[in-house]
Order: sequence, then structure tokens, then C-alpha cells
Amino acid sequence: MPPVSPLAPASFPDLPEIAGVRFATAQAGVRYKGRTDVMLAEIAEGAAIAGVFTTSATRSAPVLDCQAKLAAGGDGRAALLVNSGNSNAFTGRAGEGSVAALSTAVAERLGLDAGRVFTSSTGVIGEPLPHERIVAKIDELADGLAPGGLPAAARAIMTTDTFPKGASAEVEVDGKIVRIAGIAKGSGMIAPDMATMLVYLFTDARIEQPALQALLKAQTDLTFNCITVDSDTSTSDTLLMAATGASDADVTDSVAFTEALHNVMLDLAQQVVRDGEGATKFVEVRVTGARSDADARKVALAIANSPLVKTAIVGEDPNWGRVVMAVGKSGAEADRDRLSIRFGDVLVAENGWRAPGYTEAAGADYMKQAELVVSVDLGLAGGMATVWTCDLTHGYISINADYRS
Amino acid sequence: MPPVSPLAPASFPDLPEIAGVRFATAQAGVRYKGRTDVMLAEIAEGAAIAGVFTTSATRSAPVLDCQAKLAAGGDGRAALLVNSGNSNAFTGRAGEGSVAALSTAVAERLGLDAGRVFTSSTGVIGEPLPHERIVAKIDELADGLAPGGLPAAARAIMTTDTFPKGASAEVEVDGKIVRIAGIAKGSGMIAPDMATMLVYLFTDARIEQPALQALLKAQTDLTFNCITVDSDTSTSDTLLMAATGASDADVTDSVAFTEALHNVMLDLAQQVVRDGEGATKFVEVRVTGARSDADARKVALAIANSPLVKTAIVGEDPNWGRVVMAVGKSGAEADRDRLSIRFGDVLVAENGWRAPGYTEAAGADYMKQAELVVSVDLGLAGGMATVWTCDLTHGYISINADYRS
Repeated sequence: MPPVSPLAPASFPDLPEIAGVRFATAQAGVRYKGRTDVMLAEIAEGAAIAGVFTTSATRSAPVLDCQAKLAAGGDGRAALLVNSGNSNAFTGRAGEGSVAALSTAVAERLGLDAGRVFTSSTGVIGEPLPHERIVAKIDELADGLAPGGLPAAARAIMTTDTFPKGASAEVEVDGKIVRIAGIAKGSGMIAPDMATMLVYLFTDARIEQPALQALLKAQTDLTFNCITVDSDTSTSDTLLMAATGASDADVTDSVAFTEALHNVMLDLAQQVVRDGEGATKFVEVRVTGARSDADARKVALAIANSPLVKTAIVGEDPNWGRVVMAVGKSGAEADRDRLSIRFGDVLVAENGWRAPGYTEAAGADYMKQAELVVSVDLGLAGGMATVWTCDLTHGYISINADYRS
Repeated sequence: MPPVSPLAPASFPDLPEIAGVRFATAQAGVRYKGRTDVMLAEIAEGAAIAGVFTTSATRSAPVLDCQAKLAAGGDGRAALLVNSGNSNAFTGRAGEGSVAALSTAVAERLGLDAGRVFTSSTGVIGEPLPHERIVAKIDELADGLAPGGLPAAARAIMTTDTFPKGASAEVEVDGKIVRIAGIAKGSGMIAPDMATMLVYLFTDARIEQPALQALLKAQTDLTFNCITVDSDTSTSDTLLMAATGASDADVTDSVAFTEALHNVMLDLAQQVVRDGEGATKFVEVRVTGARSDADARKVALAIANSPLVKTAIVGEDPNWGRVVMAVGKSGAEADRDRLSIRFGDVLVAENGWRAPGYTEAAGADYMKQAELVVSVDLGLAGGMATVWTCDLTHGYISINADYRS
């Protein structure tokens, strides 16, 4: 196991219990030994459930199944079943069979409709999922369901993650306290859309399913779709959110709730970057002055995904020439002579050249920090975008050259 | 200096002299010490000169200058002046001044029009080019011009290259022998369009400039625009070709000449990949069965640029799941259940799953080779594309985290 990322939060947060949801975990031995690798969540009747998924053309069997079940609708009791170690992706008809077997087993044990059982799998692609090992643990999982099980669930869904990821918020709506709690896993194969990962969000807010779906999609675009580790996009990316309504606070159109949800999602998204495989630097890339927001996003992602920028960062080299290169290749409109670049507050380049007051010493000093901001102003118009990424290190190579072998 | 790439050709080829072109090199000390870093080529009157350049929005001063001079046309005596160590990119107005100073110095010394002096610079971005060091060597260069100087020129233009790159061909057209000889440099920041690099091609064929330009562009799309090392695109990519006509063989519409030129360009392009920074494996990615050639190219580049595929390759891991992932993220039309994947002749996956006869042992055994072919058939239509790349290794990180520091 690689050591915990130096960019990890100091500790796992206290997550509030969400009325209407219970969790359990188990050691099914899908691939990993001596650790939990399955989590079950039971969601009370009447909850709204929404989801956002990978856009990959080779989506996994559980993703396709979740999408079909969400499209079918419903508000009966529901369950989430998630395993780590095997992604059940590119496993042909057998993959669909595994999803059906798991859904049926959970539905029978919990006495609910199999169409309300959402499964996710994360890990190796292309190996048959030994679903019978998970089925054998359904009794134990069902017996273990408890409101306080979310932190343990965050650990059970980890693969190459070096720390579990959780975030929460409380907000007052119409005089009632509304709680949001979420967990995520993800570390490599992280890029929009969507930034890899599995993400599960729970709230006791009341909101209709279509409104929740729209809110979730919009906030995903501002959070998980703004991170990149290695530009690779998973076949399994899944974000599911359940709103139980137990708080009796209607959050439809609540700005406060939207902000709280945004913060939870951004926190989790940034934790995924902080756990980027081999990462030693957390980098915010801010682009302003673009012809459009879409152009700004192109530039930000070109910088954030550039292997040459990412290796300069691990080398603590203020190599702004590589930033210029990435701007140039992005495909966005740019004018060499209007471009300015800042590392933190250090103005590095402007007017088509190195800034007169810039010194390599100032740049090199700034690059020593573990948390960096690279800002590019294109000087053309008002388009802007922010993206978060990490550096590309020997650790990434080691993890990915040896993983699975 | 890193050791010579294990994928390098056994030796530098014998390059024929091209009537009408003379070469010289010198040690100007632009950045490197104890080696040549400038090359001058003199091209006889009447030659057709064509060029293909980077599409970057932050193109370097010499690239912009070359484009303007080619657009202006002309057929007087001409010169190429190339330095390594500094790319004169993102150097503002000073960069344009350096180009002008170099062009004027060469023009005066050789007695030709400054509008016929084409300069290139390769190396660090954003540092002012100490052009006076090159100007100081113009006399020495002019005195040293000789027909046999092309191999030495190949060495003078190297930056992080671990070996000089040359290729040549001879072909009979209308009973006359036509010769082509070329050199290239490039190792990192290699992606279409164009695969980084500087490339200079010389032939004694006779061809009008517009025909040469069209031929060069078409062959670039089939060669240098089909290679990728790290998906980064340089601000300096330049490919220039001069046809002196000295053979008196008109090659307009000559299939034999086109094929010979294609072979020289593909040879040089593949040498650039073989010198990919830190590369230990040379990989051909063949995509067939796509809805269109453009879709096939998207899939091939998605595979060739995927950090997860490239790290699996250095790890000699037949991780075809990552190939599936890359197909899925490419944006091209794909159907999981029609896809098939081969590593060399080993059928790995078909019908949406691992092939029945596939064994990990067979896959792992194949991956041990230094030269690999990854083939994907999408099973949809007749679109196809081939791309060449290399693996992503600790060597790449070391070179790029430390370069310039």
C-alpha cells in the first residue's frame, strides 16, 4: 500500500447521521483481503434519488443498470450496494448477470423492489465479478444496517485511494435544520466528464426527484467535472444522491441548500485530487479573460492535463514556458501579447514576455509550496473557469505500472 | 545526459549529398557548452521551399517569420539557420528582433535576400535568445559550408534527443536518379499537430512550390501528425523542405517520389517516437472498423495519449481494460459488444468481454517485447487510422521534472 497522500486532510470529518438512511459494510473478499470491500445503504420509502454518470461509450454494466433504473423512476424503499476491487466493466453479458444477481439478493433480503437496488463496482476492468462472494454477505450486511455507518462505508469503497473521503454540511431552511453528508472514492483515471469516482450523497432535505436531478447535474459541472488527475475517464463513474425528506424542509430553489451542497461536492472533488495517484502538489488553475467560459475551460484543462506542466510542478520548476505551450495548444482563442501568467501572487509573464519585475528566485520560491495557484488571464473578454489538479510524479508511474500485476 | 534510447536505430544512416545544398555547423554556446548548437544550410537559386508549422496559438517568433516569408514566395538563393538550446518563443518584440538580426546577418554574409533566410530555434521557452552569439559565428559557418554536412547538422539541432535522426531515399524518375535526405530533432512535447520537432528535408527533385507545399502537407498528415509522445504541442514545430531541381527530374505527380518521401518522413517520425523522453517501448496503435477515419484517429490518439495505457505498457501489464477505457473516453462512436482488441497477434477481447482463448500468460509474454502493436477493431464500419507512440516511464518524469532547473 502506498503511504497516505501528503495532501490529505488532517482527519476524517465527523459526518452527521441522515434520518432515513442506514449503512453497513462487510469483507466479501472480492479482490482485497483483510479489509472491507462492500457497502450497503438502505434508503427509506419516499426518498428522491438522482444520479450523474460517466459519458464513456464503454460504460460498465452497473452504470447502465443504474441509468435504466433511474429513468424508470419510483419512490419505494431503495438500496445502494457498492463493491471495490472489481469494476464489472467490459464483462459482457456476464456483467449484466452479476448486477441482476446482486440486485435480486438485496431486494429479497430487504423486502423491496429489485428495480430500486442501485449497484456500483469499482476496481479492475474486464475480470468477471465474483458476485457470489457478495451475495454470501447480504445477510450480514442487512443485519448490520445502522444510521452511523457512513464513515465505514467511505473506507469500504476505496481502491487505490490512500485515505477515505467524506464531507458534510448543515443548513437552516424554513427554520428547520437540513443535513447533507457524502462520501467519495477516486484517485486515478480522474477526468471530466466525470472525474472518475464513486460518490454517494445523502440528505434529509425534501425535494422532488426532477428538481434534485437538475440540481445534482448543475453542481457536478461546477465541482466533479472541474477536476483532473490524468485525463483518463473511467467506465464506472457514478454519483448518486438520495434525499429522504425526513427533515420536512423543502429545499426546492433554496439558495442556502444549493450552496451547502456545492460546498460538500467541491470538498469531496478536491479530496479526490488531493489523493491523485502519486500527487505531492495540489494545484488550482484559474483562467480569466477568455472569449467565453468554454474557451477558459479548454485552456484550464490543457494546462491541468499537460504532462510537461505537471512534471515541472513536481520538479518545483517555475517553467511558465510550458504554461504558454499549453495555452497555445488548447484550441481556445489566445493572443500571445495579451496573455498574463501568475504563480500565486507572483506576476510571471505579461505583454507576450516575462514580466519585467519577475525573478526566477521568486518563482522558484513560490513553487516549493504544496498548494499552488496558477492563474492565466487571456486579456480578451470575460470568460472564466477554474480547474483543480495535481502534479505528475514518479509515484504515479509506480502505482500504475505495477497495479494489477 | 540521459543514455541513448534503447529504441534507437543501430546506427546513423549514410545520407546522400543533395546537389544544390551545403551545410555547416558551429558551437555558438547559446546554452549548451562543448557541442555544436547552430546549423546553417545554403540552398541554390531556383529551389522550391515549402513548410508545415505548429498550429499553436502561441507560436514562436521564428515560426511566425518563416510563415510570412513562405507566404511572400520567391525563388532566389536561400538559407536555413537553426539553433538549439533556446526556442525564442514567448519572447515578445525582442524575439522578433532576434529573428531579424539573424536573418540580416546571414543575408549579408551570403549575399542573398533576408526574406529568403528561414530561422528556427528550439529549446527553452521564454528566455531571450542571445542571438549575438550566433551572429558571431556566421563567418565561421559560411566558410564551412559543404555538401556533406547534413549528418553534423542533425547533431547540432538536438535538445533532449538522445540520438541524431536522419533518413534518406533514392528513386528513379524518368530515368534519372532523385535523392531525398532529411534530419529531425524531437523527443518531448510531441503531439499532433504537429508532432513537435524541427524537420528539414532536402531533395534534388524538380517540382513547383505549390505542388511541393501540397505534397508536404499531405505527407505530414500521414507521418508526423500520427505520432504522439506526451500529447503536448510545441510552440516551435517546423518542417521545411527544399527541392533544388538539380537532378532535372520533374517529380510532380510521381507516385514513386511520393512513396519515397513518405518513407523518409515516416522513418524520421518514428525515430522521434523512438527517442520519446524516457521511452522503453515503441508502440503502434492500429484502429480499424470505425464509423470514419476521423473516429478511428480519435480512438487511436485516446489510446496513445492515455497515461494509464502508457504506464501499463512500461509495466509490461497486458491491461486491456485500460484500452477499453480509452476507447470509451475518446468521443468516437463505439459499441462495447462489437469491440475487439489484439496485442500483436494475441486476440485479447471480443464480443464485449475477454476472448475465450485468451490467457494472461499469453498477454504478459507479448508485452515483454520492446516493439508492440495494439490493435482495436470497432466492428462498425471501414474507418481506420494508425498512430505511433511510446510508454510513459520514470525516465519521462526525471527528464521533465529536472530539465531547465
